[in-house]
Amino acid sequence: MADFEHILQLLDWHREPKGLYEPIGYTLAEGGKRLRPRLALMSAAMYGAEEQAVPVALALEIFHNFTLLHDDLMDKAPTRRGRPTVYLRWNENTAILSGDQMLIEAYKQLEKLPDYLLAKVLHIFSTMATEICEGQQRDMDFEDMEEVSADDYMLMIKQKTSVLLGAALEMGALVGGATEKDRHLLRQAGVELGLAFQIQDDILDTYGDPNTFGKAIGGDILQNKKTLLLITAQRQANDEQRTTLDKWLHADNFVQEDKINAVREIYNQTGAREICERCMADRTDNAIRLLKEVSADTNALQTLATTMLCRKS
Amino acid sequence: MADFEHILQLLDWHREPKGLYEPIGYTLAEGGKRLRPRLALMSAAMYGAEEQAVPVALALEIFHNFTLLHDDLMDKAPTRRGRPTVYLRWNENTAILSGDQMLIEAYKQLEKLPDYLLAKVLHIFSTMATEICEGQQRDMDFEDMEEVSADDYMLMIKQKTSVLLGAALEMGALVGGATEKDRHLLRQAGVELGLAFQIQDDILDTYGDPNTFGKAIGGDILQNKKTLLLITAQRQANDEQRTTLDKWLHADNFVQEDKINAVREIYNQTGAREICERCMADRTDNAIRLLKEVSADTNALQTLATTMLCRKS
Repeated sequence: MADFEHILQLLDWHREPKGLYEPIGYTLAEGGKRLRPRLALMSAAMYGAEEQAVPVALALEIFHNFTLLHDDLMDKAPTRRGRPTVYLRWNENTAILSGDQMLIEAYKQLEKLPDYLLAKVLHIFSTMATEICEGQQRDMDFEDMEEVSADDYMLMIKQKTSVLLGAALEMGALVGGATEKDRHLLRQAGVELGLAFQIQDDILDTYGDPNTFGKAIGGDILQNKKTLLLITAQRQANDEQRTTLDKWLHADNFVQEDKINAVREIYNQTGAREICERCMADRTDNAIRLLKEVSADTNALQTLATTMLCRKS
Repeated sequence: MADFEHILQLLDWHREPKGLYEPIGYTLAEGGKRLRPRLALMSAAMYGAEEQAVPVALALEIFHNFTLLHDDLMDKAPTRRGRPTVYLRWNENTAILSGDQMLIEAYKQLEKLPDYLLAKVLHIFSTMATEICEGQQRDMDFEDMEEVSADDYMLMIKQKTSVLLGAALEMGALVGGATEKDRHLLRQAGVELGLAFQIQDDILDTYGDPNTFGKAIGGDILQNKKTLLLITAQRQANDEQRTTLDKWLHADNFVQEDKINAVREIYNQTGAREICERCMADRTDNAIRLLKEVSADTNALQTLATTMLCRKS
């Protein structure tokens, strides 16, 4: 496995004007999971082309961090990976402009690919980038909606987070010269894994271990965030549970712990927790099944997937 | 000449989610000068390849409008082409996200180019885009500086506005199969024209005809904007003129018309106006000289340049 972190840290952001590039170096500093570039490199490595996929891996990581930078500004998030977000550490205009430059830097990485690959990779990359903007817009739209259907939710998380994993696996395979069938299987597997990860995130936000989750438990509940747990509970609830849930969703003054406990209890009673866990397991099973159909050796990918999803497959 | 406006209006922005795409359609609606795509198409037409340059022309216009959208947000500009800016008509998050999507859409246009051109066009495009972000950052940095040198100013406007015109001419020529020498001459000519246009803008903001300029005269003076006129006046002023200028730059309560008249008078007295007009004429002469060196017929470009710069040359 190429030392991606090392390659990423070799990119030089000590450029002028400092106001543009310092926030980029700050955003890309060590601390991220580097999941997307890892997936691209693992996928390419399956076809003996890890080295050639480095530009794709860099483009994916720079792009992903660009989306975090602009999303944090849009969400007014105070911290990211335990440090102040760019718009707070610098200011809003810096977050806008340095983010724009990161998007351009992502595309600049792709220039390094050979001519015969460039148009195809570019197409996958821009299609994925478009879906992510669409997903972010849908997520923002949800805030103004009283209720969201499970289908709308699944489309949103597919666009906002899953297609990026699918594109990472697909682009790695493409660089490695994989067949169209393998590329398709890998893309689908990546999307399924992305859905499983996102549902896992939703579950952990409510049921996770505060010592290992990295942020406070119950944040989604306190913000009335339309997660799959909430959407499922709203659908499954009987009249009494529905009344209780609505009361908490519209409550103004309350002890945070009370709201978290009460809503979590409704998630338990309505079976929302079990349904979401089942949904996550189904997505993971789909991903593993798809990976097993790939003609190359996907064992490493399967291990990564099951490890990240805390499952003994 | 291809009907670029028609081609641009054929792009379909009636897509979902509406919150993402409506502001893009709004931003690209009729009303712009379409100077950048016109330059690219004219340049390609000189080599008989106007049709093939349409993706480049579209990419340039979408990109240019993306920069306006984000710049208007950063500058908190209320209007653009006589209509409310996107961040005011919608909101700040919409301006960020729809702008991001426009940058992606610009790159998507380039996908349509043939493989043998793609890497080169992509490189010119991303290099230009980077310079524009750097120029915007420098412009923002100027706001916090007491004085700016003429060299710093020229670098800023070169990056923020001129390289885009240079890239438009260069990309058009590249698509048309022009020699490296022609491409270089056209790029340089575009940069010189861009500098002349920007200096003209500065001059018109202070000396223009209010009936034809399109916005109120004196805006730059009221905002203490570091234009070439101000920078030159600061350099040329004697002690008395310097004291008067400083007084107006730090004045808090004044009648707007008084400040505009007083500062304009110092521009006249110090010869700043003449120096700037000379600088603009020099840049225009450079551009025309470079265009005359090009092996293809640049008469149409020369006419466009001189018309836009109101010169009889």
